[in-house]
Amino acid sequence: MASLRDERFLQKVGDRIRERRAALNLTQAQLADRCGLHRTFIGSVERGERNVAILSLRKIAQALRATPADLLTDSDSQPPS
Amino acid sequence: MASLRDERFLQKVGDRIRERRAALNLTQAQLADRCGLHRTFIGSVERGERNVAILSLRKIAQALRATPADLLTDSDSQPPS
Repeated sequence: MASLRDERFLQKVGDRIRERRAALNLTQAQLADRCGLHRTFIGSVERGERNVAILSLRKIAQALRATPADLLTDSDSQPPS
Repeated sequence: MASLRDERFLQKVGDRIRERRAALNLTQAQLADRCGLHRTFIGSVERGERNVAILSLRKIAQALRATPADLLTDSDSQPPS
């Protein structure tokens, strides 16, 4: 069961993916094709519904010409004090 | 089946976790306790044997006083050209 903080974290990652996808004028289907993942999978990641594994995150990042770290940056930008 | 590049990526993430854990003088068991994960899970992540999900990566990062992006940085630092 993901906590509220976990859900917010997953949603921020999804938002960053959607922002970069939109910046490249790609549809979810086009992004899915580029990274060899299913369109519905991309949709669920963007909605913050999926605790995505880092190899899938890496595929998505490459398709978006970003690094995996880019997609997690400012999702949790400050390390816990 | 993870490709060689995937395996190298997972190993680099594992190496970064081990480096930061050692810098904090923590054993795998102590790190596991801090993030509520099993010691053997931490061991398999450090050996690059596990395609870890981002919520677990986040727990490990918090326990290491880092951000999830820190643990992925320079694992794939240059976006694909």
